[in-house]
Amino acid sequence: MPILTLLTDFGLDDYYVAAVKGVILSLAPGTILVDLCHSVPPGDVELAGHLLAAAAPRFPPGTVHLAVVDPGVGSARRLLLAEGAEACYLAPDNGLLTPLFPACPTLRAADRPDLYLPGPGQTFHGRDRFAPLAAALLRGEPPASLGPAISDPVRWAAPPPRRETSGITGRIVQVDRFGNLITDIPSAWLPGSGWIARIAGNEVRRRVACYAEIPAGEAALLEGSRGTLEVSLRGADLARHWHAARGMPVRIFWNKEGCGPE
Amino acid sequence: MPILTLLTDFGLDDYYVAAVKGVILSLAPGTILVDLCHSVPPGDVELAGHLLAAAAPRFPPGTVHLAVVDPGVGSARRLLLAEGAEACYLAPDNGLLTPLFPACPTLRAADRPDLYLPGPGQTFHGRDRFAPLAAALLRGEPPASLGPAISDPVRWAAPPPRRETSGITGRIVQVDRFGNLITDIPSAWLPGSGWIARIAGNEVRRRVACYAEIPAGEAALLEGSRGTLEVSLRGADLARHWHAARGMPVRIFWNKEGCGPE
Amino acid sequence: MPILTLLTDFGLDDYYVAAVKGVILSLAPGTILVDLCHSVPPGDVELAGHLLAAAAPRFPPGTVHLAVVDPGVGSARRLLLAEGAEACYLAPDNGLLTPLFPACPTLRAADRPDLYLPGPGQTFHGRDRFAPLAAALLRGEPPASLGPAISDPVRWAAPPPRRETSGITGRIVQVDRFGNLITDIPSAWLPGSGWIARIAGNEVRRRVACYAEIPAGEAALLEGSRGTLEVSLRGADLARHWHAARGMPVRIFWNKEGCGPE
Repeated sequence: MPILTLLTDFGLDDYYVAAVKGVILSLAPGTILVDLCHSVPPGDVELAGHLLAAAAPRFPPGTVHLAVVDPGVGSARRLLLAEGAEACYLAPDNGLLTPLFPACPTLRAADRPDLYLPGPGQTFHGRDRFAPLAAALLRGEPPASLGPAISDPVRWAAPPPRRETSGITGRIVQVDRFGNLITDIPSAWLPGSGWIARIAGNEVRRRVACYAEIPAGEAALLEGSRGTLEVSLRGADLARHWHAARGMPVRIFWNKEGCGPE
Repeated sequence: MPILTLLTDFGLDDYYVAAVKGVILSLAPGTILVDLCHSVPPGDVELAGHLLAAAAPRFPPGTVHLAVVDPGVGSARRLLLAEGAEACYLAPDNGLLTPLFPACPTLRAADRPDLYLPGPGQTFHGRDRFAPLAAALLRGEPPASLGPAISDPVRWAAPPPRRETSGITGRIVQVDRFGNLITDIPSAWLPGSGWIARIAGNEVRRRVACYAEIPAGEAALLEGSRGTLEVSLRGADLARHWHAARGMPVRIFWNKEGCGPE
Repeated sequence: MPILTLLTDFGLDDYYVAAVKGVILSLAPGTILVDLCHSVPPGDVELAGHLLAAAAPRFPPGTVHLAVVDPGVGSARRLLLAEGAEACYLAPDNGLLTPLFPACPTLRAADRPDLYLPGPGQTFHGRDRFAPLAAALLRGEPPASLGPAISDPVRWAAPPPRRETSGITGRIVQVDRFGNLITDIPSAWLPGSGWIARIAGNEVRRRVACYAEIPAGEAALLEGSRGTLEVSLRGADLARHWHAARGMPVRIFWNKEGCGPE
């Protein structure tokens, strides 16, 4: 049976998520529905992209991923279908799928008015347009039937992490529930020694393999579950301690001993 | 496979929702479970009814909808089964199903002590009574086997929206996660022009088709996803701006040019 | 189809729960996934154990229960498999499964590096170790294949409730969404009369069968849905009224008439 994951900023206090699921189960009976996350802050396209890129590789081949964080609903923004080798992604063409583009050779502007539901209203494309498009894929319709290939998708403006001669620059892209600061810096970029990291006015000089190795009261870098560097304090909420928040810069400098990147 | 939707005020911090699901999967194996919403404020029967009425039409024929917002659990209040043409609804007889009554020709007082679970306790009818009743329907037992037809269900006291010669009177029935004010006024009642709406001390004179059409900084009416009028501010939380809350009245007046309803 | 319940402290704001589900659906296709609870406070092993013990008996035979509240992730703590007559439980060996031990004749130290996923990172054993172990059980691998039997599991330090000649001593083990104070005292321990209960500086002298029997403005004891005593105020949040919180002691004294336990 086909699997659909669902990622939205609808929250869990309303009927919105259930309405999308009802449409899917009506149009593609037997679909296995998996909630990816529904508490993305309203309109936060970038966080949605990070969550989707982190979770999607764990799902079986053939999974369809539907992501509806859509501040431009009802405007002329396109509906984007990204075809990867093993999965399809549907989302508004607003940058959300940016981190999936490298893995998706074909992008399409999905446009199948014959499939769309009539409302009520023009405010809920998740239910009236995206869900029927996803259901078509789940029923086995070929992606090419949903719309023409395009090459100019909207990309988000956030700068990618950079490796420079003086060090590495990245950002905190998420603070998780435990207060860990998750960065966008691939952990493989960090040399074994000879560096100092600066985050939110604090310095970190230790790298560990897991939380349990962090000395009490000290912050350390480690490779997080997305493969990027994470800054953590064992058993305590580092984000609160440091007043650190998403979007803050993370700078890694090569220290005086002069060790550079491998 | 049969579908059960589940709507409660149990929240997501406890074992309550899982216990109901466990009973359903034990008594009606293979049921597809869909969470409608579990964060209804404790005892808020009216909001539960609005959410159910909005989501239920999206589900395939044969779906069973179980709604447990039950401040009178353990009292003599009846267990209500409402049979619609395509779906069945189970809930306490406390008004929750009021908006579904027009679509449900037959109402029954469900009463099958032979099916009920023995507890522990007499506080959790969602698990011990409603779930076994729902499972019976999901296994294909005819609704008539659950209890006799009745004609005196409890209805909620909330006044319905009214059309009068001077205008329209309704209420804010929900504030959604984006700060949109959702009213109970059918959008078809609003004429194309010649009206002024008053909500929370503010005036609205513009109607649009979707959020993207709202001029910056201005509030507007539009047809929301339930088919009722909604008041929105593009990209911002109107409820917060206006200190607007659920239950507040919404008045629409015909303006001086004298345009009335169609 | 096999059922997996999932209990974590991951919260619902991240990709963590979905990643675990993706691994399960990849390695044990067709598994029915049920969220038990994901909002356990970070690292709160004891609350997780209470929730699991309350919900698990409701699920059909053959269900696998995976509980990942794992403050020691990455340390040398073992992965524990508890085999009951009708269900298997997987959790870190940190005390979480304590209330299930009486129902589980065999405990095992699960250790199957051949099944583990390579990461990225060493921080997410829920995804990389527990999920593949659970998937093995869901595919029908015998529990004995996961690791050797052990007899020295970690148990939590919390004292169990006690019956003494002067009365009963227990604790508030949870405050539910409605403000009910759920204790760990089996309701069968309370005699029909001749007692006074003291909780958070207040006295309770009434026992009822259900919330609807509680006189307005008065608190009462009743048998809760777990089979333990619960303290409630009808239609109001008792925890807030009394500033009562989880962990507070509950004392029941035999009153002057001298009635003791049955």
